Amino acid sequence: MPTTTVRAAVRGAETESVAAAGTAAGAVAVGERPVRGRTATRFAASALARESRVPGPAPDDWIAERGRAGALHVERIPLADLTGWSFAPGTGDLRHDSGRFFSVEGLSVRRETGPVKSWSQPVLVQSDIGVLGLLVKEFDGVLHFLMQAKMEPGNATRTQLCPTVQATRSNYSGVHGGSPVPYLEYFLRPGRGRVLVDVLQSEMGSWFHRKRNRNMVVEAPDEVPVGDDFRWMTLGEVLGQLHRDDIVNMDVRTVVACLPLPQLLSPRPSAPEPAGPPRHDSAALAHWFTGMKVRYPMVTRRFPLARVAGWKRGPDEIAHEEDRYFRILGVRVEATQREVRAWSQPLLAPVHGGVIAFLLRRFGGVLHVLVQARVEAGLLDGVELAPTVQCTPANLAGTGLPRPPFLDAVLGAPPAAILYDTLLSDEGGRIHHSLARHLLVELGEEEDGEGTEYWEPEGFRWISVEQLAGFTRHGYQVNVQARSLLSALYSLCAAGEAGEPS
Amino acid sequence: MPTTTVRAAVRGAETESVAAAGTAAGAVAVGERPVRGRTATRFAASALARESRVPGPAPDDWIAERGRAGALHVERIPLADLTGWSFAPGTGDLRHDSGRFFSVEGLSVRRETGPVKSWSQPVLVQSDIGVLGLLVKEFDGVLHFLMQAKMEPGNATRTQLCPTVQATRSNYSGVHGGSPVPYLEYFLRPGRGRVLVDVLQSEMGSWFHRKRNRNMVVEAPDEVPVGDDFRWMTLGEVLGQLHRDDIVNMDVRTVVACLPLPQLLSPRPSAPEPAGPPRHDSAALAHWFTGMKVRYPMVTRRFPLARVAGWKRGPDEIAHEEDRYFRILGVRVEATQREVRAWSQPLLAPVHGGVIAFLLRRFGGVLHVLVQARVEAGLLDGVELAPTVQCTPANLAGTGLPRPPFLDAVLGAPPAAILYDTLLSDEGGRIHHSLARHLLVELGEEEDGEGTEYWEPEGFRWISVEQLAGFTRHGYQVNVQARSLLSALYSLCAAGEAGEPS
Repeated sequence: MPTTTVRAAVRGAETESVAAAGTAAGAVAVGERPVRGRTATRFAASALARESRVPGPAPDDWIAERGRAGALHVERIPLADLTGWSFAPGTGDLRHDSGRFFSVEGLSVRRETGPVKSWSQPVLVQSDIGVLGLLVKEFDGVLHFLMQAKMEPGNATRTQLCPTVQATRSNYSGVHGGSPVPYLEYFLRPGRGRVLVDVLQSEMGSWFHRKRNRNMVVEAPDEVPVGDDFRWMTLGEVLGQLHRDDIVNMDVRTVVACLPLPQLLSPRPSAPEPAGPPRHDSAALAHWFTGMKVRYPMVTRRFPLARVAGWKRGPDEIAHEEDRYFRILGVRVEATQREVRAWSQPLLAPVHGGVIAFLLRRFGGVLHVLVQARVEAGLLDGVELAPTVQCTPANLAGTGLPRPPFLDAVLGAPPAAILYDTLLSDEGGRIHHSLARHLLVELGEEEDGEGTEYWEPEGFRWISVEQLAGFTRHGYQVNVQARSLLSALYSLCAAGEAGEPS
Repeated sequence: MPTTTVRAAVRGAETESVAAAGTAAGAVAVGERPVRGRTATRFAASALARESRVPGPAPDDWIAERGRAGALHVERIPLADLTGWSFAPGTGDLRHDSGRFFSVEGLSVRRETGPVKSWSQPVLVQSDIGVLGLLVKEFDGVLHFLMQAKMEPGNATRTQLCPTVQATRSNYSGVHGGSPVPYLEYFLRPGRGRVLVDVLQSEMGSWFHRKRNRNMVVEAPDEVPVGDDFRWMTLGEVLGQLHRDDIVNMDVRTVVACLPLPQLLSPRPSAPEPAGPPRHDSAALAHWFTGMKVRYPMVTRRFPLARVAGWKRGPDEIAHEEDRYFRILGVRVEATQREVRAWSQPLLAPVHGGVIAFLLRRFGGVLHVLVQARVEAGLLDGVELAPTVQCTPANLAGTGLPRPPFLDAVLGAPPAAILYDTLLSDEGGRIHHSLARHLLVELGEEEDGEGTEYWEPEGFRWISVEQLAGFTRHGYQVNVQARSLLSALYSLCAAGEAGEPS
């Protein structure tokens, strides 16, 4: 199992990065969206602040301490023993008796192109829109983020660093009979609070049918009481935790990816040459992306879980007949930290771990990533921008399907090229033990294959990180795996490990 | 029936507008998207050019002449007589035997809020993505648009001004057995052509289930042969036709709305004060818009047409039991102009005409429109920005439903406030005789109710026209009715009737 290996290919002293953030005044173009002065500058300054101005234990110690204080006991149980859940007569869909939370249903998919033309699968259906909210506030002139230490039933090993709020309507509208969700009012009724980010984003498109989360950042206007499991951190401290395996949860990563952080990516003002334009202008990228959506039309239809072919339902789980992809299993949970003390629920458990990676490369000194326009059955518009590699190699074994492009390039990259290599997990409220290896692999300009097909196959494009950030600030353009890697990339920039041209 | 009444509330000489377009160099912020120099300037210059540089008859004469040359004979026939179409056994869905084109199915809708909590209805399902393409080319330094004169089976009265290409995959992949669609290759394989616009947009969300069109503008690099039904026009000539009833078809209107035309809206450089900021900044608008999507969750599900309650199927049409909303009817078509000479097909025929209107108002000299975040069952994300008023008053009669906000304000506006009042129709390839009254009504600043609830109810916001244009340049944000009105607003600006502060 790989451990965190952030290579110290330092590309500029921290002090220079601070200066860059402080002096970049006025509008900064992020992809297609001008990120105006002050808000962007404040986020950049927080990203470069390595220590909280609010006294307290160091983040590592605090997270470990909260983990000891708040135990969560999770036990596998047969599906039939899930309290409040049952298989609907006729359809076989697995539902909560209230009709809320989520359900497990069937999805049929037909495509005209691609290696597999049609299939059916179980899918998690959740029409509830979740709130993933970060509350921020200035201390000593630096923005701090109110972070939560929280354990979720699907977590592999431990308490994670979570947003101020992660809640669905079923959580906060009283369906689960629990106590109120702390700080939720700042996001539902900001009042005098200032909303800095509010955008709907997708979740894992292979497992969820059109799930959407509301990614929010709200600045609190007044004094905020800080609960036991909460702590003010600078963005730099949050990003620092991204260098550790399985600590920063998915919900933090996606919201961080929605922040206006282009200044972290700016070349030094003292650089001899101004940074060049991105490899493709926005009209060309729009044409390619739209073309990919049109080229791979997909017809999806929800249908009864009982009729999904190739999957079997046993007493303990719903699983693929060849035990690929994922299982649906049941857990009983007892908690000390939560609004509800005990409950049971289904979880989706991937069978194997995935590999999620961006290839990085500079063109004319400007950092680019190789994005893939990826079809996923559960995405609202069918296609979003995804990492260069997003796959589960073990699921391919024995299927005769082709090995995804660039997988071997990523797995075989020389150590010096690997800027980031960390295990991160998907959201533990629905997904069980889903650690995936997240990598950022930088190619040198000398490996330039410009003009050759190899470097930019049809479904792939080199786009600047600023363009990726611009797409991310609009909903449903960049998938959650790519958003995770963007947050990891910001963590490298904040640490001075990728933000500057070498 | 209202006729075209464009009030000559002239707000600035054309020459000044030309100067404004010509001198605004560099990046111009359109809502959230910087529209960079040259392309935007070229479109603005074309919009202000009232005469084509390519010799030929005047647009009015040419359209009339093409109408005489290319007859289309349309005849109502019983649904059972539709060649190649049949009602599927069991479901009762009306489908083409090839499985292509589109189908008529059932849609069930459940909402937690709103005046009507649940209903079912017939809906047109078309997973094919259409191409709506404008080919452009410079003559004498001015961009010209290759426009087509075309009659569609659903047209109320006449030949319309249409884009260079309007085609679905079923058209161009040979399903209908016709000849190739002219100019299509410029859009499917632009080659050396330069793609200036390429964005997916929704179509009428109350009638179509998730229909998407690809709105494209491509600049031709070489000589382009011009077919009989085609003519090069400046954008100013196209916009000029928007002042006539039922001439510019919906597909032209939506593509024009996607053009980067902010310079048409710019205040004069000679204005004494710089134009103020918009009433709401982009973060505040994003928060409101996201909040509206979350507030009105809607669960839609396709199901068999035969099980739609409240609708009846007769030999000649599928209709609502109270004869509201729309009918599905059959036509046989014979053409001289088309790739296919004769065919039959179903059409959706609205029972009554609609009213579609924007209220306009200046805040600090900046032109704003009052947008509505409108729920429509067939929209991909459920909610898009819509006109202030979008309704069919006759459908409300006798239902006890509340009269929509601002409808009476629009219908009772004093003549001097009505800048635009023209009948425009929906796309005639699927929709039959759907003329709706399109209005732009400007409120004086003295009617300012700022701070009172009346002016900005929860589902409504005053946004600047530049912000609306910015939203439009991204897919699925602005509905087709609002895009039509935006193109009408551009026509006023180009004519010097709305572009300048008074």
